Amino acid sequence: MGEFDLIARYFTRPAQRALLGVGDDCALLQPRPGTQLAISSDVLVAGRHFFADVKPESLGHKALAVNLSDLAACGARPLAFTLALSLPQVDEPWLADFSRGLWALADAHNCELIGGDTTQGPLNICITVLGETEGQPLLRSQAQPGDELWVSGSLGDAHLALQGLLGRLPVSAALLEQTRQRLERPTPRVALGLALRGIAHAAIDLSDGLVGDLRHVLKASGMGATVQAKLAARLLTAQHHPDWPAVGSTALAHVLAGGDDYELCFTAPPEAHEAVLQAARLTQTPVTRIGRIEAEHGLRLVDAQQQPLPLTVASYDHFAHP
Amino acid sequence: MGEFDLIARYFTRPAQRALLGVGDDCALLQPRPGTQLAISSDVLVAGRHFFADVKPESLGHKALAVNLSDLAACGARPLAFTLALSLPQVDEPWLADFSRGLWALADAHNCELIGGDTTQGPLNICITVLGETEGQPLLRSQAQPGDELWVSGSLGDAHLALQGLLGRLPVSAALLEQTRQRLERPTPRVALGLALRGIAHAAIDLSDGLVGDLRHVLKASGMGATVQAKLAARLLTAQHHPDWPAVGSTALAHVLAGGDDYELCFTAPPEAHEAVLQAARLTQTPVTRIGRIEAEHGLRLVDAQQQPLPLTVASYDHFAHP
Repeated sequence: MGEFDLIARYFTRPAQRALLGVGDDCALLQPRPGTQLAISSDVLVAGRHFFADVKPESLGHKALAVNLSDLAACGARPLAFTLALSLPQVDEPWLADFSRGLWALADAHNCELIGGDTTQGPLNICITVLGETEGQPLLRSQAQPGDELWVSGSLGDAHLALQGLLGRLPVSAALLEQTRQRLERPTPRVALGLALRGIAHAAIDLSDGLVGDLRHVLKASGMGATVQAKLAARLLTAQHHPDWPAVGSTALAHVLAGGDDYELCFTAPPEAHEAVLQAARLTQTPVTRIGRIEAEHGLRLVDAQQQPLPLTVASYDHFAHP
Repeated sequence: MGEFDLIARYFTRPAQRALLGVGDDCALLQPRPGTQLAISSDVLVAGRHFFADVKPESLGHKALAVNLSDLAACGARPLAFTLALSLPQVDEPWLADFSRGLWALADAHNCELIGGDTTQGPLNICITVLGETEGQPLLRSQAQPGDELWVSGSLGDAHLALQGLLGRLPVSAALLEQTRQRLERPTPRVALGLALRGIAHAAIDLSDGLVGDLRHVLKASGMGATVQAKLAARLLTAQHHPDWPAVGSTALAHVLAGGDDYELCFTAPPEAHEAVLQAARLTQTPVTRIGRIEAEHGLRLVDAQQQPLPLTVASYDHFAHP
């Protein structure tokens, strides 16, 4: 099977909303008047972002999910995406599975595949996603003093699964089975991001871990924050599993260091507290308040008695973790 | 140097036209009313699209050039691009050279870097470019019977250089030096593409070779074509070099099989002949008429006496040339 047959078989559908989809030199989109276009690119590399033996269907899901998560963090509605795929060889069962995972998530978000590129090379998946925003987008730079600090869903389970798969922690098969779903099939919080427009101030998606990503928000906003350790520690789902104690680590460590969660971390004024909970209910997305934005720079972790706790975890950096 | 320092040092500039550039979850663009957005992605893989020892400055140029060439083929004006870069390690001199080549071409086309991704992995460069079109874009599907068939610039020199570098043809150092410029630093014909709006019917950029890419146009348009071998053969610049005879192959073979030329192949009605030449003059881009579009399906090559010649060259297919 050649390049063009491959594209035709696995990655081509008639254009729906796009003026022109796969098959010409460019795709064409007609943005709606009054909207801005939100654009983000994310790349997944074998051996770095996923294990070589991951299910290709999960990989197709995740490659798009991490991009949709960026749209969610801006409060943007997904429109379309391009896929640039480097493959060692044409493996039809792999392509069938990969594309099934990709299409399923794309359909769930009404996000159209409009173009891309396919080439022979080490496995590398680069997706660029396009969305539309109206009014004020959610930006990293908009956190205000006094804002409540929120996180969607659960945190740290993906990190726990990764540590288990790497053999760094004794994670039982049952616990691994549960947590690796979070690592391999993250849920982009698109509906929540849309519902938070006009309610939240700042937002970011948590791909590199809570501490590292929250620091991006604080830096961009010129703010500081205090996180309640007890509230944050509750975010690890794995601690409710019967096998959890045998792992021998703390829930807080996984929540803070994290990575690969693709939850939203956002700030909103205290008077919007009920509106945040309402947005969460409407979109069926759990949210937890874990702290507060403050004018004093720096990130502080405190216990239930408001006493400072050490905060030594680092964020994920692709070139610092070779 | 970590991921975020790398992005800050080599790939961040203040947003100009974009509402938001590098540094948040998404970039934001405000398309002008009445325009459509043209989008294209191209990926370059080490060992497949370029030699490992290519000058990084040339690579930065080429990675963007092949994307701008897609915009040119639609008659779109470049706006912005994202860069997803996988690198084996942080090599600062390499990054400085690569980014210099990238910025130089971006600046020449007023095309802004608005976001992307950086990760550790086998060298892989994925660029997604965004442009704007107004009115009727140039599409592969618009060729009409009787249209004249045109090509910009020269064809086949990049192919000759590649054959020389691969040791498949005896290309002298002097001839290689001249032709590898065409391979490593292609010129995207953006200005010509813009000038041909409203004049040309169909267009495509020649990345996989004249025969293969022209067949895409014919298939999309439901047309056939006859190419004059004598006119096409003139497109190889290398044949005027004193070392050319020693190569021992025909100009026509390089022109037809080609690849990596990034010239425009386009069709326009005979009554637009002067308008095409005027567009070429205004944009200082040579153009050559090499044949004609016909209702009869198929691609035909004929000699000066209109006698058929064999047409056996294949187009480049990434999975058929392992």
